[in-house]
Amino acid sequence: MKIDYKKELETASKGMIMIHDPKLLIKLIVRMIVRKLGLRHAAMILFDPNEDAYFLDISRGETGHKIPSGFTRFDKKSPIIKVFREKEFKCLTLDRSALVSQDIHRLIWKESVIENGNGTKDLLHKVEKQMQTLNSVACVPAYYHGDLLVVLLLGEKFDETSFEQDELDFFSALASDAAMAIRNAQLFDSLKKEADRNHELFIQTIVVLGSTIEAKDAYTHGHTARVTKYAVDIAHQMVVNGSAEFEKGFFENLYIAGLLHDIGKIGVPEVILNKRGKLTNDEYIIMKQHTIKGVEIVKPLSLPKECLDGIKYHHESFDGAGYPEALQGAGIPISAAIISVADTFDAMTSDRPYRKGLKKEIAMEEIENKSGTQFNPIVAQAMKEIFEKGTI
Amino acid sequence: MKIDYKKELETASKGMIMIHDPKLLIKLIVRMIVRKLGLRHAAMILFDPNEDAYFLDISRGETGHKIPSGFTRFDKKSPIIKVFREKEFKCLTLDRSALVSQDIHRLIWKESVIENGNGTKDLLHKVEKQMQTLNSVACVPAYYHGDLLVVLLLGEKFDETSFEQDELDFFSALASDAAMAIRNAQLFDSLKKEADRNHELFIQTIVVLGSTIEAKDAYTHGHTARVTKYAVDIAHQMVVNGSAEFEKGFFENLYIAGLLHDIGKIGVPEVILNKRGKLTNDEYIIMKQHTIKGVEIVKPLSLPKECLDGIKYHHESFDGAGYPEALQGAGIPISAAIISVADTFDAMTSDRPYRKGLKKEIAMEEIENKSGTQFNPIVAQAMKEIFEKGTI
Repeated sequence: MKIDYKKELETASKGMIMIHDPKLLIKLIVRMIVRKLGLRHAAMILFDPNEDAYFLDISRGETGHKIPSGFTRFDKKSPIIKVFREKEFKCLTLDRSALVSQDIHRLIWKESVIENGNGTKDLLHKVEKQMQTLNSVACVPAYYHGDLLVVLLLGEKFDETSFEQDELDFFSALASDAAMAIRNAQLFDSLKKEADRNHELFIQTIVVLGSTIEAKDAYTHGHTARVTKYAVDIAHQMVVNGSAEFEKGFFENLYIAGLLHDIGKIGVPEVILNKRGKLTNDEYIIMKQHTIKGVEIVKPLSLPKECLDGIKYHHESFDGAGYPEALQGAGIPISAAIISVADTFDAMTSDRPYRKGLKKEIAMEEIENKSGTQFNPIVAQAMKEIFEKGTI
Repeated sequence: MKIDYKKELETASKGMIMIHDPKLLIKLIVRMIVRKLGLRHAAMILFDPNEDAYFLDISRGETGHKIPSGFTRFDKKSPIIKVFREKEFKCLTLDRSALVSQDIHRLIWKESVIENGNGTKDLLHKVEKQMQTLNSVACVPAYYHGDLLVVLLLGEKFDETSFEQDELDFFSALASDAAMAIRNAQLFDSLKKEADRNHELFIQTIVVLGSTIEAKDAYTHGHTARVTKYAVDIAHQMVVNGSAEFEKGFFENLYIAGLLHDIGKIGVPEVILNKRGKLTNDEYIIMKQHTIKGVEIVKPLSLPKECLDGIKYHHESFDGAGYPEALQGAGIPISAAIISVADTFDAMTSDRPYRKGLKKEIAMEEIENKSGTQFNPIVAQAMKEIFEKGTI
């Protein structure tokens, strides 16, 4: 039964562009070639723009036949690459858009090749040898914007017949579609990595920003990181025990809020921040401003509301006795209510130069006692559960 | 002359996926349809996943004929969308993979339509009316993963003949390829936007991080922003006057270094930072540590070397009399040498509570006088040039 190559090509190319993982794409294409055409094996040499070189990306055969490993990198002067890359050799493949091993010998003795003193004959000998080493009987190039992007390496057919013109045309069209799809996937991949890297940089900068306060406030070493961890753990527990459901993005926003909850203290004078004794009324007024100042400092970031709420309202009290707005009960944003419990727990249990921190059991009792007055009961309950699990 | 639709399709689809601007892609496809097929006009309705609705994206005609503006949004219950989206109506278009206006009337009187009480007849009437309003004689749907993504709206042919089956098949195949290419472009576009947004967030967070020191150091209001601007201006001038060439990325790295050059001051006590008189020896030793501390603070960011150099070495002196490492001449990284000039110029010209800033002319003279001793002469020269241009 004759294969309808036009149809095969359409089916194969269809959907290629929606696979945005270059490795997977190459794997699928090579597997398809091997299966549909009954080859012993096939492989693909692909240009890597980052390395400015060519790499053998996959070598797959249904049988033991395969391209020897170790031949993975091909520089631009490698015979198989050179013969397809450099314009002066293009005439060699013009008629078939592929190099088939049985043709190479014929080519070597062509009049034009012998007369031409530029080493074509020598190059063809090397290509022949390289194809033997790679167990390949045909090479099919594909270009993108005139640059060699892909060379398909084809092994023998199972029935040991030679390639027909329509088969080579099919390979050529397929390689060309594949080249474009692979280029698309490569671009996608690098864009995805860029987006991820930028996001990671943003988060890391938030971490650094959050830690600046620790350079100033002698009592807060590690406080920011611990409060953030407690807050995220509490929120998880609230989901686990069914007392809350959070939208996508909540956990990242809570994480950012935790890191930045005390950032406003940057604006509080060190004499107040580091005072050992009780603050005077005036000093306390300045100290309390850190919630508002925090929001002002991060204003240029246009952070999500949940982040800003966590920074601004983490000193509100469930009974309305907190600051800066004396919000009450459910009126206190949940991210702030969570940070409030996490913050208080860490403040109680941390050592200070002038006093030792409370035992965690005592601090936990204190949180429970103030559930419903200072703290949101749902949050206090979640805190109790993770405390009892021993993960805090 | 008969058009070879297979070939046209191949040419048209080729390269579609490498256009990653959805708007441009749609424009090209619609223009191609209009020109090749001799239509009065054509347009495309496209699904927008963000809006969860369909939008008429372009309406292009060679003549005055075009789809009236104002019909840009189509919700899922809109007749033309509904007839292609909902499974129960798929039988209506199964045979031709398109709805042609002259067929609709015939369909309305089909036995199965009349017998079926689900409002098919009514819907077809509405589709007919909507197509008239849109000046269209044929609608061709395209799906991606089973979801309706595109509806091509076709106007009359110039020769006023009706569409043949091979033409409709061509449109259907083209719409299907276009749907995939557009989806690819949309994904690309949103990924690009995400990467840009994340990068912008990172830079904004660096700005905030850099400005934290100003909350602490009473004398530095606006200093960070000005030094950063001067530094970038100087570097540009060095390129303009041919005294330097910078790699891609240098300007952004210099910008980041400018914003963060004094970040280490976060770790210097306020009593030293804000002292009006001369610092004692011990105080000066602590003050000088801000260069090293700065690099420590930003360590988690793994910033490029140029950024770190700018932070660490902006107090080095060309003659080796600076700190922290007493580097000399060309041994001082260029980003640091640039920030050094910018920093000194701004420190001299800024008002302080206990003294007025120097006039810019005087400060500029001072920079010139110290060219070759404190400052890299190339940098001092560029500074002089922009000063003379009056842009500083």
